[in-house]
Amino acid sequence: MSDLFGAPLSVINVGLAQFAEPIRAAGANVVDVEWAPPAHDEDIARALARLVNRADIEAANQTAFGRYLAAQPTLKGVGIARDVLDGLGERMILHSGPPITWDEMCAPVRGAIAGACVYEGWAETPAEAETLAGSGEISFAPCHHFGAVGPMAGIISPSMPLWIIEDPVHDHTTFSNLNEGLGKVLRFGANSPDVIAHLEWMRDVLAPALVATLETLGDLELKPIMAQALHMGDEVHNRNGAASALLIKRLIPAALDAGLDAKTLSDVVTFINSNDHFFLNLSMAACKSMLDAAHGVPGSSLVTAMARNGVNFGIRVSGLGDTWFEAPASIIDGLFFPGYSTADANPDLGDSSITETCGIGAFAMAASPAIVQFVGGTASDALANSRRMGHITFGRNTAFTLPALDFMATPAGIDIRKVVDTGIAPVINTGIAHREAGIGQVGAGITHAPLTCFSAAVAALAETFVD
Amino acid sequence: MSDLFGAPLSVINVGLAQFAEPIRAAGANVVDVEWAPPAHDEDIARALARLVNRADIEAANQTAFGRYLAAQPTLKGVGIARDVLDGLGERMILHSGPPITWDEMCAPVRGAIAGACVYEGWAETPAEAETLAGSGEISFAPCHHFGAVGPMAGIISPSMPLWIIEDPVHDHTTFSNLNEGLGKVLRFGANSPDVIAHLEWMRDVLAPALVATLETLGDLELKPIMAQALHMGDEVHNRNGAASALLIKRLIPAALDAGLDAKTLSDVVTFINSNDHFFLNLSMAACKSMLDAAHGVPGSSLVTAMARNGVNFGIRVSGLGDTWFEAPASIIDGLFFPGYSTADANPDLGDSSITETCGIGAFAMAASPAIVQFVGGTASDALANSRRMGHITFGRNTAFTLPALDFMATPAGIDIRKVVDTGIAPVINTGIAHREAGIGQVGAGITHAPLTCFSAAVAALAETFVD
Repeated sequence: MSDLFGAPLSVINVGLAQFAEPIRAAGANVVDVEWAPPAHDEDIARALARLVNRADIEAANQTAFGRYLAAQPTLKGVGIARDVLDGLGERMILHSGPPITWDEMCAPVRGAIAGACVYEGWAETPAEAETLAGSGEISFAPCHHFGAVGPMAGIISPSMPLWIIEDPVHDHTTFSNLNEGLGKVLRFGANSPDVIAHLEWMRDVLAPALVATLETLGDLELKPIMAQALHMGDEVHNRNGAASALLIKRLIPAALDAGLDAKTLSDVVTFINSNDHFFLNLSMAACKSMLDAAHGVPGSSLVTAMARNGVNFGIRVSGLGDTWFEAPASIIDGLFFPGYSTADANPDLGDSSITETCGIGAFAMAASPAIVQFVGGTASDALANSRRMGHITFGRNTAFTLPALDFMATPAGIDIRKVVDTGIAPVINTGIAHREAGIGQVGAGITHAPLTCFSAAVAALAETFVD
Repeated sequence: MSDLFGAPLSVINVGLAQFAEPIRAAGANVVDVEWAPPAHDEDIARALARLVNRADIEAANQTAFGRYLAAQPTLKGVGIARDVLDGLGERMILHSGPPITWDEMCAPVRGAIAGACVYEGWAETPAEAETLAGSGEISFAPCHHFGAVGPMAGIISPSMPLWIIEDPVHDHTTFSNLNEGLGKVLRFGANSPDVIAHLEWMRDVLAPALVATLETLGDLELKPIMAQALHMGDEVHNRNGAASALLIKRLIPAALDAGLDAKTLSDVVTFINSNDHFFLNLSMAACKSMLDAAHGVPGSSLVTAMARNGVNFGIRVSGLGDTWFEAPASIIDGLFFPGYSTADANPDLGDSSITETCGIGAFAMAASPAIVQFVGGTASDALANSRRMGHITFGRNTAFTLPALDFMATPAGIDIRKVVDTGIAPVINTGIAHREAGIGQVGAGITHAPLTCFSAAVAALAETFVD
């Protein structure tokens, strides 16, 4: 100790800033680190204490994580929602995020639902559709309750075409809607006649062409495409250019052999080619497939879904059944398109955070330094995000490696205990929707899952352990 | 000073190791840095001294570099070598690298030339072709002497189809042969009947299909594709997967509209789709275009070509006309395919180092951390290569940015003075050919341009300044 105080001191002060003052006054060099004890709520701290260092939870997580790793999401085809979704009501519309009533919904989701009602022929105009939707005659449910996911508003109505993804390892099927492209699209709440006409083209031309193409192509495993895309600058959430191109390379030869007429072939190829996010919905359904495999393991503290409905953010946990643990959806810190600002932004929206739940998206941001031009920050921030998420995850997914971190496998298996213990919130890359329906995307950025979802889940998990 | 020696010393010893010994013996902590004074040859040092800090050379380099930046290589079409190469002899074969005689050539180049003779109908068998080639009846010249480039053996014979690249800014045309794909291919010296049949298919089916497609597509600027590929994990020399996919996305809709018959369309798409290096030859011809724009500026010390014929490595310098400055080609430090080792490797071969000359390839390796799985090293090495090349280049090419270095523009415009002054040799990513003809690629790795090419060029440039 006498040696220590004989030399000039460099001090790191963690937490309360006033501890640093006398040291600084005495002439030492002090760096302040902002820090507060995590789990500051006493009840949550007690609940967490009951859940740490338990062999049974470790074993449950090992089981859940093993199932997640073993899943092999495989693109099987395209089908119409009413034909492929078990229990979908004839007048039911699915939306992103946790459950929500019409009255509570944000404007982009309402706009998208109104558009879906017009598309289904249940109403003549969006205004008529809004009256219908508020009348109680239409029922609403989360996509997640039907094994499905959708970006932004995430709308699935009975006659929409869906991607069908099977995991043969766990004999489980997941779904997503098809990406409409950029510009004025239903998922941002647009519902004008051109938006509806495009949805009809997707149902009447694109979907049958994809059915024929996929029948010619046969099964297509999605993890290898996602893994290769991670080596090509995608994080497969907000950058899908490489994955979409790799998909196109697989689809085109099959499309040529599928006997499509020349105009259909040309229109379909032009449409897919023009949309760098075409793969996004497949990425999401593949992530849903891997995470559903991990769901339902008693005692497991691993997160199997994170989703937002534009009002609330919800998570599901493997060992906690179908319960959603919710908190208000965050506002996103991002880069806005010219003319827009945070004041225009809808709170966090969409099922696409299933990618981060799965260890890609912002968790794999080290693979995608170029994305900082779109979501903000620097290349170092991108690396730091992937590294930091390693503190709150159960393991690493060796199927998905990050070249810039010397092929480190991506961190995956968010553990609610680690989130609450460290106070590190899961990071999410996301598009930002305008808070009014139909204006569309106004930017993109980085946000974090609200910590209170995780502390509520910790409390609930602790209650399941009565010993 | 008394303060300095009062505290424990940490010493960095640069150069002669024996200087460190007494310090280490006295108990200090010493790190040795290997270093020798560059330009140790006295005549070269004098020549270099005459070339530094000259306003006229700076101005010449500014002119040359400005032309390099302004070039806009544009894919215009595909033509047959004898129709598009000015002055190509009827029995002439072009090869990669600086000039070389048949007797001096390495086996893969001889094998490829023999294959080209059979392909041209000048000989029935490769053996007969080798006799013919050695007889003096066939003339040989570097691709570079005809504004062309070719990977590995780089063979161009009169009836081969070539990419035609125009730079409208400087009204200049460059060329490359078409990539044959992987496996048994002419560019590695293979010349069996299936190799020849594939070349015939490329001439008779692929080339006309590309002509029709490019007529439908119109002009295609190549720099934007290369720039986008750098954001997708390519360095556009040994990783071309993204650039090839982006090219395919541009070609397919045009191919669909070009009225090709269904079988041709399917065969051509399947062929292009199966070759992640399909873009390489376009990348090379685009680089040749940019560097030709910079060539021929009196007094400029910038390198406008680096090329290897498998025996010798040669460079050309903007201010030094058509002279090649040569040194023996290096052996490559790389990763070998199973069953092969350095003993199997041909020395450095091919015109593809035109990419590094242009600031991409290994110079842009920071864009492509995933390439270290192919050429060896770590992600940090990839970043370090791009950073280090900044010490020997005139400027940066803002058309080509490196996301992992926070979008730093790639270093470009190799200055022979800086290479000789620093002793830092230009780094090159490269495939490794088997030293016997026809076995093909046996690995890939990293090598460096031989420094003596640059010191010879410095001596020659100094002679042009008589003041």
